[in-house]
Amino acid sequence: MEQRISLVTLGVRDLPRARAFYEELGWRGQEVEETVFFQAGGVVVVLWGRDRLAADCGVPDPDSREAWFGGTALAHNVREREEVDAVLAEAATAGATVTRPAGETPYGGYAGVFTDPDGHAWEISWNPGFPIAEDGSVTVPPLT
Amino acid sequence: MEQRISLVTLGVRDLPRARAFYEELGWRGQEVEETVFFQAGGVVVVLWGRDRLAADCGVPDPDSREAWFGGTALAHNVREREEVDAVLAEAATAGATVTRPAGETPYGGYAGVFTDPDGHAWEISWNPGFPIAEDGSVTVPPLT
Repeated sequence: MEQRISLVTLGVRDLPRARAFYEELGWRGQEVEETVFFQAGGVVVVLWGRDRLAADCGVPDPDSREAWFGGTALAHNVREREEVDAVLAEAATAGATVTRPAGETPYGGYAGVFTDPDGHAWEISWNPGFPIAEDGSVTVPPLT
Repeated sequence: MEQRISLVTLGVRDLPRARAFYEELGWRGQEVEETVFFQAGGVVVVLWGRDRLAADCGVPDPDSREAWFGGTALAHNVREREEVDAVLAEAATAGATVTRPAGETPYGGYAGVFTDPDGHAWEISWNPGFPIAEDGSVTVPPLT
């Protein structure tokens, strides 16, 4: 697993309220399918429904203390589809819990999610629509 | 507030366990004062005690549903000390809760924390020890 981070997704309870908040701070993003993408330097900050994010990560929200969802998910995008399974296997070996096995994604990619020993969710994603630069940085493409 | 992110801090319950986990994934960091810093592309991923992180952010962990700590904090580093107060004020105007007013930090900087409407903690930090490049990326300096 390369030493980098690609997206930070903030699970939110009210998307218009959350988007308005960041816009009030001067941020400008793109909204598509009730998801807001902000290019933030070489990473992407995403706002998405907290319940959907928890479900998407395969993590209960928020009552079980054992597998507890903190409301944030990290994403690590890979360059080749095959790397998804490899990274998930590597993480499982390292002690992670694979909370969503790798599978096709609605956006034409392939991804899975693990939680680290503290329950932090990492999505390992091959997403051909989000180019990865040589230096590992991710750029949000035009989405609409 | 510039549209970027500087650090992602993961609150962890057992630092050696967490560090071993990421090292098992191939990551290499620097540990100083029970804090592990990983350079991750243009951002920095930090491991730190969950209780300290919650306290540092001024957020209870984790029983109050109203001001609830998700175990992750984002940092937005600024170039000039004066920007800290400006960004906190801007955030408060936008509806944030300032959970830790701006003040001197143990590392010789100046910082404060706000939580967004969903409780996500953002530290706004002027940290002269962590250089910010022209493009906004942050580089971990040699710490030991």
